[in-house]
Amino acid sequence: MSITVVGTMAFDAIETPFGKTDKIIGGSATYAAYAASNFVQPIQQISIVGFDFPQEELETMHSRDILTEGVVIIPDKKSFFWSGKYHLDMNTRDTLVTDLNVLADFNPVVPESYQGSEFLMLGNLVPAIQKKVIQQFKQRPKLIIMDTMNFWIETAFEDLKQVFSMVDVLLVNDSEAREISGEFSLVKAAKKILTMGPKFLIVKKGEHGALLFHENNVFFAPALPLEDVFDPTGAGDTFAGGFIGHLAKTNNISFENMKTAIIVGSAMASFCVEKFGTERLKEISTKDINTRVSEFVQLVNFDIALV
Amino acid sequence: MSITVVGTMAFDAIETPFGKTDKIIGGSATYAAYAASNFVQPIQQISIVGFDFPQEELETMHSRDILTEGVVIIPDKKSFFWSGKYHLDMNTRDTLVTDLNVLADFNPVVPESYQGSEFLMLGNLVPAIQKKVIQQFKQRPKLIIMDTMNFWIETAFEDLKQVFSMVDVLLVNDSEAREISGEFSLVKAAKKILTMGPKFLIVKKGEHGALLFHENNVFFAPALPLEDVFDPTGAGDTFAGGFIGHLAKTNNISFENMKTAIIVGSAMASFCVEKFGTERLKEISTKDINTRVSEFVQLVNFDIALV
Repeated sequence: MSITVVGTMAFDAIETPFGKTDKIIGGSATYAAYAASNFVQPIQQISIVGFDFPQEELETMHSRDILTEGVVIIPDKKSFFWSGKYHLDMNTRDTLVTDLNVLADFNPVVPESYQGSEFLMLGNLVPAIQKKVIQQFKQRPKLIIMDTMNFWIETAFEDLKQVFSMVDVLLVNDSEAREISGEFSLVKAAKKILTMGPKFLIVKKGEHGALLFHENNVFFAPALPLEDVFDPTGAGDTFAGGFIGHLAKTNNISFENMKTAIIVGSAMASFCVEKFGTERLKEISTKDINTRVSEFVQLVNFDIALV
Repeated sequence: MSITVVGTMAFDAIETPFGKTDKIIGGSATYAAYAASNFVQPIQQISIVGFDFPQEELETMHSRDILTEGVVIIPDKKSFFWSGKYHLDMNTRDTLVTDLNVLADFNPVVPESYQGSEFLMLGNLVPAIQKKVIQQFKQRPKLIIMDTMNFWIETAFEDLKQVFSMVDVLLVNDSEAREISGEFSLVKAAKKILTMGPKFLIVKKGEHGALLFHENNVFFAPALPLEDVFDPTGAGDTFAGGFIGHLAKTNNISFENMKTAIIVGSAMASFCVEKFGTERLKEISTKDINTRVSEFVQLVNFDIALV
């Protein structure tokens, strides 16, 4: 079972109430791949980087069977760079710098060796590019998941709706779900969005957990209450990587199994925020993940009581 | 098994994005009693009202075995009145009017017939009054639960800490937990608050659910995702009533049973917000409650997966 991940591989500089980093490795495809590689291999990356992206990072990826044949290296340009500062509540942040650099030229090509991939994760990108990637697969992947952001909802909604109609799972946060649907109630928002194409909708609410909607069903997964959220950067992409990783590993895309996949994704995200960048994701073992998933079971498990 | 409820019985005038009421019946003790009376009887009210509090409402209470011997009626004063307007997100509201009226003279006396009550719910009141009520019980109730609000944290913190040291369960919302502890992280806040007296801490997060902390354990209960939250007034008191009602009915105050009680409380709160005031709470049947509790099971139930 293989997963193809499309997204950014980049540099971030992050400031949180707990500290500050210089340029560190980030990007949606980086986080998603490190998370997913705990569950299945290979992970097939599609991305673009500049001359400054470290060779050692690519080697670390290769050591986890994260393939980079689909990662274009532009020799005379810099990698995408984002810098941001989080507020005390860690749910809001200010973007300080966005240097597109190589990302301005991103025109992803699916390598021949990636054809036949069963699972496809489309990180947040220009909707037209997400569409182009899907169209390059000769055989439609068994499951296509997409992320997006408010910027595309506001500037490329028609393109975005085309992509919605081509995917199975849409992954957005609560404010994006409200913006797409024009509904404040997330239940109403979900009903509308599910008529736009995706069969499953995941609404991420940060520290307040995530909701999974499918037909008339809804499932809720909490976030693990943590003493400190050290750095939330990449938590959403890590969640996505854990989610698709579990689905691919079990080769089961039923609603029931997606519930478990959301818990696994939440567990992965809870590791991600414990340190800056991808540091924690590179340290953890299968045993750590299993222990964390068990904590989620403890967190929500109760005896059924009838009055 | 009997429950004594201390709090307000009052009038509210409410404006939400869905509509507006004239003066309707409200008050913390009213909501808590209607909720709890689904589980055990009698519910013994301690409150104060004016000449304008309707006799029919008291009769409705009596018909549900909500006793009002401890409710003082002041013949020449009006009942407590609160008026507020909710914002679109329903998590925030502006208080338009607060007329204390009879509440300014509230000096609760525990009737002899209430002595021996096993469960005591102290609604949000002046901390010194909450303390006075506890002290009047010749035999300490088996379980004492208290609510409070930011106003007392800011103006009567020393008194409040005395009450904390006398109760078993403290019920606050997330911003109050942060204010009491001076910690932003709710996990850190809970650790601090649990050193102040209460053995159990419930942190209510409105539409984002509730957390129960006890020693080093934590349990999370979601709120039910609803199409519309029609009127959130009284949801917290209804939650408390359902919570204590379940504990009293099962006569079990273990952490395990408190988890279930929180789900029951959340189910009751989910009914409360469906209509203005206490209207919905008066309509629902045991069957409705059981169906709703089952929906909570569906909402969070997943298969354990080990990687």
